Amino acid sequence: MPKTVRIAMLGSGFVAGFYMQGLANVNGQEVVVNFSLDKKRAKKFAATWNIPEHTTNLAKLIERDDIDLYIIALPNDAHMPVSVLLSQAGRNQVCTKPLARTPEEAGRMLKAAVESDKLHGYAETEVFAPAVVKARQTIESGGIGKVLWVRSRESHSGPHSAHFWDIERTGGGAMNDLACHCIEAARYFHGKENAIVEVMAWGDTLVHSKKTKGEDNALLVLKFSSGGIAHCEMSWTCKGGLDLRNEIHGSEGSIFTDVTRGTPISSFVSQPAGYVVEKADIDFGWTRPLPEEAFTYGYQAEMRHFVECVRDGVEPRETYVDGYAVNCVLDAGYQSMASKRWVKVKY
Amino acid sequence: MPKTVRIAMLGSGFVAGFYMQGLANVNGQEVVVNFSLDKKRAKKFAATWNIPEHTTNLAKLIERDDIDLYIIALPNDAHMPVSVLLSQAGRNQVCTKPLARTPEEAGRMLKAAVESDKLHGYAETEVFAPAVVKARQTIESGGIGKVLWVRSRESHSGPHSAHFWDIERTGGGAMNDLACHCIEAARYFHGKENAIVEVMAWGDTLVHSKKTKGEDNALLVLKFSSGGIAHCEMSWTCKGGLDLRNEIHGSEGSIFTDVTRGTPISSFVSQPAGYVVEKADIDFGWTRPLPEEAFTYGYQAEMRHFVECVRDGVEPRETYVDGYAVNCVLDAGYQSMASKRWVKVKY
Amino acid sequence: MPKTVRIAMLGSGFVAGFYMQGLANVNGQEVVVNFSLDKKRAKKFAATWNIPEHTTNLAKLIERDDIDLYIIALPNDAHMPVSVLLSQAGRNQVCTKPLARTPEEAGRMLKAAVESDKLHGYAETEVFAPAVVKARQTIESGGIGKVLWVRSRESHSGPHSAHFWDIERTGGGAMNDLACHCIEAARYFHGKENAIVEVMAWGDTLVHSKKTKGEDNALLVLKFSSGGIAHCEMSWTCKGGLDLRNEIHGSEGSIFTDVTRGTPISSFVSQPAGYVVEKADIDFGWTRPLPEEAFTYGYQAEMRHFVECVRDGVEPRETYVDGYAVNCVLDAGYQSMASKRWVKVKY
Amino acid sequence: MPKTVRIAMLGSGFVAGFYMQGLANVNGQEVVVNFSLDKKRAKKFAATWNIPEHTTNLAKLIERDDIDLYIIALPNDAHMPVSVLLSQAGRNQVCTKPLARTPEEAGRMLKAAVESDKLHGYAETEVFAPAVVKARQTIESGGIGKVLWVRSRESHSGPHSAHFWDIERTGGGAMNDLACHCIEAARYFHGKENAIVEVMAWGDTLVHSKKTKGEDNALLVLKFSSGGIAHCEMSWTCKGGLDLRNEIHGSEGSIFTDVTRGTPISSFVSQPAGYVVEKADIDFGWTRPLPEEAFTYGYQAEMRHFVECVRDGVEPRETYVDGYAVNCVLDAGYQSMASKRWVKVKY
Ligand SMILES: NC(=O)c1ccc[n+]([C@@H]2O[C@H](COP(=O)([O-])OP(=O)(O)OC[C@H]3O[C@@H](n4cnc5c(N)ncnc54)[C@H](O)[C@@H]3O)[C@@H](O)[C@H]2O)c1
Ligand SMILES: NC(=O)c1ccc[n+]([C@@H]2O[C@H](COP(=O)([O-])OP(=O)(O)OC[C@H]3O[C@@H](n4cnc5c(N)ncnc54)[C@H](O)[C@@H]3O)[C@@H](O)[C@H]2O)c1
Ligand SMILES: NC(=O)c1ccc[n+]([C@@H]2O[C@H](COP(=O)([O-])OP(=O)(O)OC[C@H]3O[C@@H](n4cnc5c(N)ncnc54)[C@H](O)[C@@H]3O)[C@@H](O)[C@H]2O)c1
Ligand SMILES: NC(=O)c1ccc[n+]([C@@H]2O[C@H](COP(=O)([O-])OP(=O)(O)OC[C@H]3O[C@@H](n4cnc5c(N)ncnc54)[C@H](O)[C@@H]3O)[C@@H](O)[C@H]2O)c1
Repeated sequence: MPKTVRIAMLGSGFVAGFYMQGLANVNGQEVVVNFSLDKKRAKKFAATWNIPEHTTNLAKLIERDDIDLYIIALPNDAHMPVSVLLSQAGRNQVCTKPLARTPEEAGRMLKAAVESDKLHGYAETEVFAPAVVKARQTIESGGIGKVLWVRSRESHSGPHSAHFWDIERTGGGAMNDLACHCIEAARYFHGKENAIVEVMAWGDTLVHSKKTKGEDNALLVLKFSSGGIAHCEMSWTCKGGLDLRNEIHGSEGSIFTDVTRGTPISSFVSQPAGYVVEKADIDFGWTRPLPEEAFTYGYQAEMRHFVECVRDGVEPRETYVDGYAVNCVLDAGYQSMASKRWVKVKY
Repeated sequence: MPKTVRIAMLGSGFVAGFYMQGLANVNGQEVVVNFSLDKKRAKKFAATWNIPEHTTNLAKLIERDDIDLYIIALPNDAHMPVSVLLSQAGRNQVCTKPLARTPEEAGRMLKAAVESDKLHGYAETEVFAPAVVKARQTIESGGIGKVLWVRSRESHSGPHSAHFWDIERTGGGAMNDLACHCIEAARYFHGKENAIVEVMAWGDTLVHSKKTKGEDNALLVLKFSSGGIAHCEMSWTCKGGLDLRNEIHGSEGSIFTDVTRGTPISSFVSQPAGYVVEKADIDFGWTRPLPEEAFTYGYQAEMRHFVECVRDGVEPRETYVDGYAVNCVLDAGYQSMASKRWVKVKY
Repeated sequence: MPKTVRIAMLGSGFVAGFYMQGLANVNGQEVVVNFSLDKKRAKKFAATWNIPEHTTNLAKLIERDDIDLYIIALPNDAHMPVSVLLSQAGRNQVCTKPLARTPEEAGRMLKAAVESDKLHGYAETEVFAPAVVKARQTIESGGIGKVLWVRSRESHSGPHSAHFWDIERTGGGAMNDLACHCIEAARYFHGKENAIVEVMAWGDTLVHSKKTKGEDNALLVLKFSSGGIAHCEMSWTCKGGLDLRNEIHGSEGSIFTDVTRGTPISSFVSQPAGYVVEKADIDFGWTRPLPEEAFTYGYQAEMRHFVECVRDGVEPRETYVDGYAVNCVLDAGYQSMASKRWVKVKY
Repeated sequence: MPKTVRIAMLGSGFVAGFYMQGLANVNGQEVVVNFSLDKKRAKKFAATWNIPEHTTNLAKLIERDDIDLYIIALPNDAHMPVSVLLSQAGRNQVCTKPLARTPEEAGRMLKAAVESDKLHGYAETEVFAPAVVKARQTIESGGIGKVLWVRSRESHSGPHSAHFWDIERTGGGAMNDLACHCIEAARYFHGKENAIVEVMAWGDTLVHSKKTKGEDNALLVLKFSSGGIAHCEMSWTCKGGLDLRNEIHGSEGSIFTDVTRGTPISSFVSQPAGYVVEKADIDFGWTRPLPEEAFTYGYQAEMRHFVECVRDGVEPRETYVDGYAVNCVLDAGYQSMASKRWVKVKY
């Protein structure tokens, strides 16, 4: 049996919990330590997930040489500093989305990671979601001909943690937070060799203007070098639970993915009967519970992929190169939102 | 990190492949050896699934004392003889559904397993399918009140291997093959404490009379001690892919599960574009591909459960006690099919 | 332009309202008079639907010779006496389902109507619902080969008027009330030339035993002379709105109809926002509103058909012959429920 | 009974057939004459739809004073000349979408119609489709709060008649042909009092460049005075049948309409088994037949509305004022497509 991959989980919040759920079904790994800023949270997280050690001392944790993989599950503003430290120490690392708040930060992370000559993985769930992977396979098999138009939508009624509303800490509003997924999905479906060349965006703060300076609704249009397009719909004001859909229209067919409402279970319950789905907004009456979110959203598959890459010494299919590209596209999107014109992009 | 559970996979056919797919996402285990009657198949299976050893000598394999769990993935007629040998050797074992061909065979297996004082697990996928588990949780949370009526349906266009058509080897036709799943789902939803007391069945060979003496369509009605019922629909003559649905109607609500058509992806493709779903019958035009069958059908969850039970020394939630009960209900069903009356059942 | 068909609507309750909704979209007819036992109700009904006249005097209404069609939309116990009077007066008539409370009553109605030599139509909505008609056309085109098994389900949380709970007035419980639809759907899909030869039924009062002596849940199995079957599921204890589904499984394919949940609109609303669907049980959160029930359930199509038959002097495709057959099958079902055996049926 | 409304149907093509299907279920009207350029077609159309008279002489037909309503079901370039003649003769008229090829043409039609002081109705099916009307009622009931974002999509694999591909005759490509529906839906959901103030469009000819100079794919973004938006997706290159969907996202909920795939019937057929849906592209395997298109798309409801308006002497809820507004928005869209900027619009 091959060596067990030993993991350090950095962060103890929402996404860290999802990573643990994903890892629970990945063979050949062990999360050996958790880092959290706050001692109590670290302790609680370790207890919940049965992690032997926890710490609040990041510097020391990075120094250790018995850790095969560090997973950055921290707020956006912490990605760059922590990542650069890991690179300098020559550690394998995976960072959650978005890679950084700006192309400049993302560029620094990428440069340091490349120089470290270690593994760097960009944890973009969307392109690991089983439904999305199946869609890509269908495209590769020629089922829908040439991809012409991708629609990618990600919406919910607003983020769960305070830092998301502070655009200084985060880098932007709903577009920054959610378009990462859509952009990467669009690149995955159109093919990465087919570069995004120009973007057009609209965004506005239609509901949450008291809570944030960021836009709470945004539309981002991507033009690819093939002539095809993608449009991304992002919202922090939509009720009824996380809405995460893609449509891929090709010259010979179309594919539709809908992981939160195309579920294998639907029910009418007269009283609340347990968790339904991320940000559900209602838990009785008619609902479509999602049985295993960590699996369906792609957390399990991305974690499995990164663990196997570490073990087998191969490059992940999503790296900081991709995270950097996404930050460049987002940046062009914000320029377009301001100028009301199409903006060229290069990454 | 706890000890890795070492597994022997007995069989190299259809269900054995699904078990391997399921195990691929189970942490802390390793399939170390495969048994197959045929040397070539054993070799090929081991190569496909990266299993270090393979053998055609079952007796020797059972003698080994470095195997933590034997999984019986063989045709129905082989379950009893192999299981009894494993019990006599004092081995942990899991057997696929149905436990046996008759209550007598199942009774012998149960008795031997109990006497061995080792783990015996009944691998009934249906009650491990994430959607079905979620349904049960919803029931337990009181969401639908008292369970009154369960509908459980399992159909496809006919089995893939010759032995299924030979009722001597298998124990019966479509009811024997498919009602296992439905009966166990019904018990799971109604609660195992709520015994099945009487059954009524209809069955007939409407299409495949040249291929089998078994019924290719069957309806089985189960009356529970609570007064509630379940009805099970089984067919080997339905086109369009595996159809696997449950409806649970309670006094305060209803739950519907549909794992093969309630999928997160739907597509229109102009030409075949890869695997769609088990026994799909068509692979172009409009289809609903099922991204990860081994996960959705419950193979991953049951394998994880049995591995954890072996590791932690706890009794599985499905054992030969349940498999025996299912065989008793099936037997009463066949009596009813012949007598055209309700038949009492006890297990 | 052909002569306008002049209609008398007998009854001012639930189904009469649906008939008026259906007729609103039928060309070449006019409802000229409404009969109701109660003067106030008659007046109100006439006002609501813009009907020029109303009366409480049925005898006189039947005497009139300027009425082309009388529609019986009264409780079950009133069908036979009113129908026989109409026949004796030589009037064209349409009666709602079930034709009567017993085969004897139905037989009397049929005999009188045949002797009158006038039009008699059996208003069974189900076989006029556009989705059901489309299913039948698909069968006729050979799309699913030979029909083997029909599932027909009709359920809701209990009837809206007192008379339904009184089995003396109505003829039975949920089976009597709802299986009419299912039996006729099954005959429509299997083909009327393919007779029902034997039936098996289960029924019980699982929830409403304080309100009724009738069963509130029932399962009815029909065996056809072809060897194929149908099973009908009826319930007065299911929440979440009217559930009205058919599945037709043939040797070469399957058809599924679902008029109340397969709707073109789904919504998440934070507060009640108007009518959703018949017996909805909830009107906020996630719902599937049904935009035009009278059309979708078949009321418009059956009314159009009967109006055209009157105008063109042709026999309707559903007559008292069919209504009588349904009463015979229901009767055999109640015998089976009591005897717990299959019961032969002839009509 | 009120007077029957006598109708002249101008045109004998695709949409004229749908209007006849719609009218078949409208009470109190009669199509008394059909006009077609071609004698044979006129004759055949009249025979098919049981219309007593047909003619190829439009001028004479307009002169007649026994026609209550003229319906213009002709290609786009014929709308203006025919409409102006009708206005000059003082006739009630209804015109299909788009009202004209340019704002100038539409303006002339509007002016003449207003001066005629007769009824002018704009036959935009989308806002009469029962699902869309139900959505609007839900909005009015406050179910989704303030409307923020509308998505309206209309796509298929390309038009059925030659004139659509000739942008001189038609006024433009896929945007011109299909965005009429989407723009009017967006205005209906946002409320007509909430004006469209600015638009942004992208369009390109990705597949059919040999057949047309018009764009075959287009995205049109509408900004409303409320700050909310709508985006419209139009395509002539999507396979799998007519795709006609709306999403309305409000501050308190969302509504989704899908009339071609949210149908009450789904089936798996092994061989073609009759008509499925407009521009279906496949008629076997898994399909979702649409039982009554003329009803579901809104043809029946719009025809009923216009007939009732003529009879009762009231103004239709869609008039040439609306058709003119749509042409203005389309025109701004084409300007934006060329300039790659947001373009202000006024109507
Ligand atoms: N699908 C996905 O991949 C996905 C989903 C959600 C969030 N995310 C990403 O995960 C990251 C974290 O989001 P979350 O939702 O888990 O947030 P969260 O607020 O739930 O958790 C953040 C964690 O970081 C810790 N933390 C806060 N500030 C820190 C600092 N300066 N240094 C170190 N630790 C700090 C907090 O204590 C907490 O444990 C974000 O970058 C977000 O974009 C990704
Ligand atoms: N959902 C489920 O859990 C599920 C699904 C399918 C099959 N099954 C069960 O799995 C079992 C095997 O079915 P399958 O579909 O994999 O069949 P299969 O024919 O695909 O494979 C059977 C395997 O057993 C071997 N074999 C045949 N006869 C044998 C014998 N006498 N002794 C030892 N090995 C023998 C074959 O070589 C083959 O490897 C059956 O009991 C079936 O009911 C369960
Ligand atoms: N899909 C269908 O076709 C459908 C649906 C619902 C009901 N129905 C049938 O319609 C009939 C009426 O049911 P409903 O739901 O409209 O009931 P309801 O109680 O709403 O209305 C019954 C009407 O009959 C009148 N009435 C009562 N007793 C009468 C009597 N003895 N003589 C004359 N009039 C009398 C009442 O005043 C009332 O106007 C029943 O036979 C029922 O089975 C058919
Ligand atoms: N949902 C809708 O409301 C809808 C749907 C389809 C088409 N339409 C509209 O209907 C109109 C007609 O489209 P169609 O699909 O029926 O086209 P079509 O080609 O099927 O039919 C056009 C008809 O017009 C006649 N015609 C052609 N040129 C003419 C001319 N110069 N003068 C008079 N008659 C002429 C043809 O003989 C034919 O009868 C178009 O404006 C189109 O945009 C509306």
